[in-house]
Amino acid sequence: MSDVRVHPERLAAVTEWDYEADVVVVGYGVAGAGAAIEAARAGADVLVLERTGGWGGAAALSGGFIYLGGGTALQQALGFDDTPENMERFLMAALGPGADEVKIRDYCQGSVEHFDWLVAQGVPFKEEFWGEPGWEPPADQGLMFSGGENAAPYNTLATPAPRGHLPQMADKHTGEKGGGFMLMKPLTDTAAALGIRAEYDVRLQRLIVDDSGRVTGVVAKRYGKPVYVRARRGVVLATGSFAYNQQMVEAYTPLLINRPAAAIEEHDGIGILVAQALGAQLAHMDAIEVAIFADPQLMARGILVNGRGQRYIPEDSYPSHIGQSTLIRQANEAFLIIDESALEEANNSVSSSAAMRSVPPTWVAESVEELESDIGFPAGVLQATVEVYNRHAKDGADPLLGKKTQWVKPIGAPLAAYDLRNRTGGFTLGGLRTDLDSRVVHVSGDPIPGLFAAGRCTSGISAGGYVSGASLGDGSFYGRRAGRTAAGS
Amino acid sequence: MSDVRVHPERLAAVTEWDYEADVVVVGYGVAGAGAAIEAARAGADVLVLERTGGWGGAAALSGGFIYLGGGTALQQALGFDDTPENMERFLMAALGPGADEVKIRDYCQGSVEHFDWLVAQGVPFKEEFWGEPGWEPPADQGLMFSGGENAAPYNTLATPAPRGHLPQMADKHTGEKGGGFMLMKPLTDTAAALGIRAEYDVRLQRLIVDDSGRVTGVVAKRYGKPVYVRARRGVVLATGSFAYNQQMVEAYTPLLINRPAAAIEEHDGIGILVAQALGAQLAHMDAIEVAIFADPQLMARGILVNGRGQRYIPEDSYPSHIGQSTLIRQANEAFLIIDESALEEANNSVSSSAAMRSVPPTWVAESVEELESDIGFPAGVLQATVEVYNRHAKDGADPLLGKKTQWVKPIGAPLAAYDLRNRTGGFTLGGLRTDLDSRVVHVSGDPIPGLFAAGRCTSGISAGGYVSGASLGDGSFYGRRAGRTAAGS
Repeated sequence: MSDVRVHPERLAAVTEWDYEADVVVVGYGVAGAGAAIEAARAGADVLVLERTGGWGGAAALSGGFIYLGGGTALQQALGFDDTPENMERFLMAALGPGADEVKIRDYCQGSVEHFDWLVAQGVPFKEEFWGEPGWEPPADQGLMFSGGENAAPYNTLATPAPRGHLPQMADKHTGEKGGGFMLMKPLTDTAAALGIRAEYDVRLQRLIVDDSGRVTGVVAKRYGKPVYVRARRGVVLATGSFAYNQQMVEAYTPLLINRPAAAIEEHDGIGILVAQALGAQLAHMDAIEVAIFADPQLMARGILVNGRGQRYIPEDSYPSHIGQSTLIRQANEAFLIIDESALEEANNSVSSSAAMRSVPPTWVAESVEELESDIGFPAGVLQATVEVYNRHAKDGADPLLGKKTQWVKPIGAPLAAYDLRNRTGGFTLGGLRTDLDSRVVHVSGDPIPGLFAAGRCTSGISAGGYVSGASLGDGSFYGRRAGRTAAGS
Repeated sequence: MSDVRVHPERLAAVTEWDYEADVVVVGYGVAGAGAAIEAARAGADVLVLERTGGWGGAAALSGGFIYLGGGTALQQALGFDDTPENMERFLMAALGPGADEVKIRDYCQGSVEHFDWLVAQGVPFKEEFWGEPGWEPPADQGLMFSGGENAAPYNTLATPAPRGHLPQMADKHTGEKGGGFMLMKPLTDTAAALGIRAEYDVRLQRLIVDDSGRVTGVVAKRYGKPVYVRARRGVVLATGSFAYNQQMVEAYTPLLINRPAAAIEEHDGIGILVAQALGAQLAHMDAIEVAIFADPQLMARGILVNGRGQRYIPEDSYPSHIGQSTLIRQANEAFLIIDESALEEANNSVSSSAAMRSVPPTWVAESVEELESDIGFPAGVLQATVEVYNRHAKDGADPLLGKKTQWVKPIGAPLAAYDLRNRTGGFTLGGLRTDLDSRVVHVSGDPIPGLFAAGRCTSGISAGGYVSGASLGDGSFYGRRAGRTAAGS
């Protein structure tokens, strides 16, 4: 951090511009692409600055989920009922406490239009639903439950509707031709067709402000040399999370120290820092997405116990909820207990994360008592847990946690356990506070003139909870807003 | 928040000063008092601005714990061995993850001297130890375990030493003549004797900066009128937490929405906001102290179960650890299960929170099965928990959680349960990042010239965990540093 100099530069000190545009977008991931396209459509001359050698950001490397609902064309085509109000009810429960109700309502109300917009830019979605437990669909299915909508307790709070919309992959899951790539390719093609310029290998250093405090450009660096970029109407920050800024992770999300996942090393928090240097307000800096590296098809068919041998979450939950609960509330300790027949059934199921099943169980035993001793639990602890589970499972019920009947079966013998301690990782969700027009808000409550932001350098719809597709979702949604507002300012 | 205008004022815009001093201290709690005294001793002309009608802040209304160790005179007089290294080992385990090791080491190394300094200012400590479970001693005892040092798992990580140093009360527990009052009275008397001026009913509005970015004063408000105060050497922010700033609580510590405790309404985050407006860096904004409103003498003699009927923490833990664990990790749901004989024993014990015992149990039953049903747990859940506990308790052991043998006894019948759901409250621990000299750090990593801070408007030694006395401790400790550094700058 010692070489970071994020103090704003005074406009009067700039003698020459290397580039000029109406709207300067920093970062060419999904938020930047959305901002660039909408700014250009609103009549602005747009320049995108990207620190790597090409477009894509974390989005292009991701699975590609976009969390949308309220009755999108894809939901309707596949026979799922949903309304903006139903979606809002679910998200307020799943993303809180402290979730921004106004922003979530706004997002839910605009969700159908946003899906149509993505399709209009050329993002392909296959009309096929995938209903099995999993992190992603196993192939190119376009719709999936991606936030635990159909798991307890959420299935009692709102009508479950799948909202994970996935661009149709041309080849494999992630990377080139994966879902994220197939989202970003049409967006950047669209941007190019609109005449939007992009400069690569350009790294943001600081913002330029005039005497009134208005942001009028950025100072960047390219191959070690300073680059001065003038923004006549505004700067849009779309620089991603702080998952790879060690000091910020220690200060805000210490549970993620040494365990970043689903993030890219470019996510060093620079967009947050340059805005903070102007007095920007932050929100939900502790919020994290957490993956647990285990196959959901396995987890749903067993029981998960914590370091005390106790169940703590319905095993058919959205796997990131399992990850969050394990890391945040169970000291990052989990064990998956599963009997031989359930294990066999799981191993015969289809899953996008089947590779995670290639690891054999850590322990196998002829009885729960033996397994309990092998794992090292105090005598009686795991036996008590299994006894209570089996007592109700014989009736297909899970009154303790509400796992769905289809996954509830008494645990028999022989049985096995997977050691899932320290098997989580994730990325940061907190960042700049923005208003519904994607203006960066100052600690005074006023917007900072000329400064806009979207994507994971902002605090979006999540206040701590998570659903897969929330980041590409609010990034693209509020990226578009940022572009439109910046162009009009 | 809409009327908050925390933008810095330009020095050039100030035409007249209402007050001038070398060092201006904002807030007359324990951090402000420490800063004022040390700045004056270092030769500075000091002015304290306090928004209420008198000195004291949250400190004067508190119980008065100051967390100190490493072999203080009081620890030694009462026969307790401790070293700075042992204290550091404990605090790194209890206050992390993400705890600032450099700051904690600094605090532990300076702890003995700080105790002597407090005594030298006239703060009285009675040479008597209190060793029973409790939030505070029942009378005017001067030393107590106040952070779970002697409870699992901490008693296996460092040699337990009591470090809760309590000023001797003249009368009752809190308020006038309580421990906090008896801390603040000698400090403010000392300040007055040093000729330190204090102005009351003066509310901080914004900082004044010169063209180089140096803080040179504050704009405040008194009875609705602006007050301009010049600080020739520096401004020390000692304005307390943000526990009563609704927007900040929603954004950073949503678990505390509508449940502030052990804080005062003046703790509205203003010191954090005015510094953020200058680009100040923050840390650990999610960290919270959490009290659970129950008598530790009762809790130690029963078992605490969560909303799933499972034990989750040694019941003889430092009660704030029980509070944090309950609110943060157990969805704010707890039930205390205790049998008749243990309840009788607890009711005959001495406790500072005996008043909390005047509430009768929520449920009484002849058997665990009956109690389980009365509470509404699924059949078998609580029975399993009690069976496992009793299985080991008959040998005086608690292998699951490590409660100390003296509190471990099988639970018999008849028995009772207290409903402790939603019985927590607390205050915020996060805030401005400061260096060891109490300089406020900019997001660039540089100190902000002329700006210092201490107390709960800063992120102190806690990164999320807590020990009683950490706030008065690091507030007074780094308050002194702030005063010295500001006077010398």
